[in-house]
Amino acid sequence: MSKVSLAKGTRDFGAEEMRKRKFIFNGIEQVFQLYGFHAIETPALENIETLTGKYGDEGDQLLFKILDSGDFWGNIEQEYGANKEIGKLNSKNIASKIASRGLRYDLTVPFARYVSMNRHLVKLPFRRYQMQPVWRADRPQKGRYREFWQCDADIIGSNSLLCEADLMGIFHRSFEKLGIKNFVIHLNSRKILEGVAEVLNASEKFGDLTIALDKYDKIGIQGVKTELQQRGFDDEQIEKISHFLFCESLNIKTLEKWKTLLSDSKIGLTGVSELGSLLSYLEASGFNNQIVLDGTLARGLSYYTGCIFEVKVPDSGIGSIAAGGRYDNLTGIFGMPGISGVGISFGADRIYDLMEAQNLFPKSADGNCKVLFCGMDENAISYCIPMAEKLRNAQIACKIYPEASKLKKQLDYANAEKIPYAAIIGEQEMKDKQLTIKDLETGKQETLYLEDLINKLKL
Amino acid sequence: MSKVSLAKGTRDFGAEEMRKRKFIFNGIEQVFQLYGFHAIETPALENIETLTGKYGDEGDQLLFKILDSGDFWGNIEQEYGANKEIGKLNSKNIASKIASRGLRYDLTVPFARYVSMNRHLVKLPFRRYQMQPVWRADRPQKGRYREFWQCDADIIGSNSLLCEADLMGIFHRSFEKLGIKNFVIHLNSRKILEGVAEVLNASEKFGDLTIALDKYDKIGIQGVKTELQQRGFDDEQIEKISHFLFCESLNIKTLEKWKTLLSDSKIGLTGVSELGSLLSYLEASGFNNQIVLDGTLARGLSYYTGCIFEVKVPDSGIGSIAAGGRYDNLTGIFGMPGISGVGISFGADRIYDLMEAQNLFPKSADGNCKVLFCGMDENAISYCIPMAEKLRNAQIACKIYPEASKLKKQLDYANAEKIPYAAIIGEQEMKDKQLTIKDLETGKQETLYLEDLINKLKL
Repeated sequence: MSKVSLAKGTRDFGAEEMRKRKFIFNGIEQVFQLYGFHAIETPALENIETLTGKYGDEGDQLLFKILDSGDFWGNIEQEYGANKEIGKLNSKNIASKIASRGLRYDLTVPFARYVSMNRHLVKLPFRRYQMQPVWRADRPQKGRYREFWQCDADIIGSNSLLCEADLMGIFHRSFEKLGIKNFVIHLNSRKILEGVAEVLNASEKFGDLTIALDKYDKIGIQGVKTELQQRGFDDEQIEKISHFLFCESLNIKTLEKWKTLLSDSKIGLTGVSELGSLLSYLEASGFNNQIVLDGTLARGLSYYTGCIFEVKVPDSGIGSIAAGGRYDNLTGIFGMPGISGVGISFGADRIYDLMEAQNLFPKSADGNCKVLFCGMDENAISYCIPMAEKLRNAQIACKIYPEASKLKKQLDYANAEKIPYAAIIGEQEMKDKQLTIKDLETGKQETLYLEDLINKLKL
Repeated sequence: MSKVSLAKGTRDFGAEEMRKRKFIFNGIEQVFQLYGFHAIETPALENIETLTGKYGDEGDQLLFKILDSGDFWGNIEQEYGANKEIGKLNSKNIASKIASRGLRYDLTVPFARYVSMNRHLVKLPFRRYQMQPVWRADRPQKGRYREFWQCDADIIGSNSLLCEADLMGIFHRSFEKLGIKNFVIHLNSRKILEGVAEVLNASEKFGDLTIALDKYDKIGIQGVKTELQQRGFDDEQIEKISHFLFCESLNIKTLEKWKTLLSDSKIGLTGVSELGSLLSYLEASGFNNQIVLDGTLARGLSYYTGCIFEVKVPDSGIGSIAAGGRYDNLTGIFGMPGISGVGISFGADRIYDLMEAQNLFPKSADGNCKVLFCGMDENAISYCIPMAEKLRNAQIACKIYPEASKLKKQLDYANAEKIPYAAIIGEQEMKDKQLTIKDLETGKQETLYLEDLINKLKL
């Protein structure tokens, strides 16, 4: 028997982790639903054509591919003809012949596929959320897994900045619900970045600009300047860019400053004006605080075309815990052009780590089993059964220790399971039709009737 | 651009299906929790050694294997030496070299792996549930998918029949919660079946007996008799077996009948006595109805050793919607002998089909978005925002139509989304600080203050 192990980069989630994960996922899901989002789910297995070419060369490398069943080698032997061309085989051309399916790499491409395959069903504007695992054949390291969960929400089919405003509301309500108070939403617009490139007369270097800015968090302002130099920006341009590298509260004054800086760029001014609309919606919703306009925010991924955002918790040592942005063309790759939208993604693993580090999980994440019935003999176990069912009728979770073990063993079990109360049943309790309740935190005991227990626990 | 499609045997779940599926899964999950079960989750990807050899030859064939990344062909070329032994390659020996991981085939083997890897964490008796997709490279057909959900609950580490009784309670509460009233729980014991083989002097033919009985549902009593004949049972034996092929309410009288029939078999009598304990627990819990003792129930899978059960809905045209049984040795395959347990599994897809056919999904599965705000111009949209947020503060889900489109278009949208109320905002409403609510089912309209709307919808 070989030593059993997990596949590298994957995790089991035990009882406690699951409760905490459910606390996060359920909390966010409730907020999505408050804003009228619909859940959808797509399969883990996708045809390989759906996945390849969507994530760049690096992404293609990281796709997990599924070996076809049946006689895949027979087909290759036939094609490469009785060993004559076997020398031409390599991992890449074989893979393309023996793996016609792959594992979901993210939730965006499957969503785009879903929308383009279900145009008749999807009424625009469509709000969907999706919380499912994705797989990447990356090198596993601390905080990076080969199987991990994404938690995405998108609104497609409307250009209104109200969509962005709703997503900011979702950030606020979700993090408040989870007890994460000191988050900051960093906001920028790809149009503003395009405007910056334009006022530098460097529109053709827009890509270089975003790549350099994207490193700001890691390498600081001097690092970005060096990077820009290496990418061919001259001193004057770099000097100008540095004016944009500020991060200030989102308000009318800040927007005015941007407006002045970008006065020579039409697209830049459009970006500022859109942020103005967003700001006015946010003032109406009351969610205009904890938002900064951040000139260094670039969001590497190239498909964003409008507002972009990232949520951080200062001094947490944890990167962004949520992010998103507006894009122009979700489903073009699947033959359905013109669907724009805006979406966000919560970083479930980082949120978990942050909440663990800041001790934010509530006591309820200890579990919802409230009572362990401890019978001292076989009769006592039978005596417990109708009482346990009455608790369950009142929606109070409980269980009966199934063996007449020593009391200490049963109480140890309750403690290990973090069950707050033990209901101890001996001769006297059965005679009096009562039960003795021990509060396992305080050690206090009282003998009472079942109805009293139900009333006590329902409070 | 090639025509986009789903991988064969997989499904997307759209908004409505997801709400219905969540209704089922959440309902069952709440019942699991009432009985003190813990959720765990295991990864989709497992090392291939964890999976192979656990499901018989047929199961091994149906495992989805993941192609290793990196230069898998280079390794093979090296091993099979510059084409000299390429002729020896076939799909099977290649697969074993280029696919070191596979996709989860069920939830039982990963659970066994989890328990054997986490003995220090798992306090026995341990109650766990797990609701995750599994993958099988089966030929897809109606109702059979390559990616489908299992929904399992197991209690390990106790031989008490109270565990079986709790699982029967879970069946009752779950199906009642889902509105499935006319279910019948079929119950038997592998020990009784062993006893039957023993009183026939055919213990060595126990496997043949269970295989034949397992076909009863499909081929009827005559079919089973023919099958038994073909498997070498003589007329006298077949005549005797037919005494056991009854299906009667579980009660003392039925058990007495079995006791008489099995009086010559020790293991058979143990089986009857265990069912007696189970019956007495069920009488205490009140869940002793809708249960039949069914001599034809055999549950093909060979690892069951005690009570076995299957839940059916007569005349539904749908097979069993849940099943389970007791086993002796969950984790032996992973080097941890002696862990017995009992488990059940809900057939989520069949339950879905049954509820759809019997129209059992409640209106709430239509969605929880209660109000669509319809603004007649840009000002009206801004006017709606704080009202929408106040509804959300009161946990009432709503959304604002993000464009100032024509009212008809907005109402069509609300209808398509099955949103019950439209809040229409025009000049007059803004002036009076009110809103006009249209009930989209009845067509009735009324103009009211936001507080009145909140009170109306909170009821």
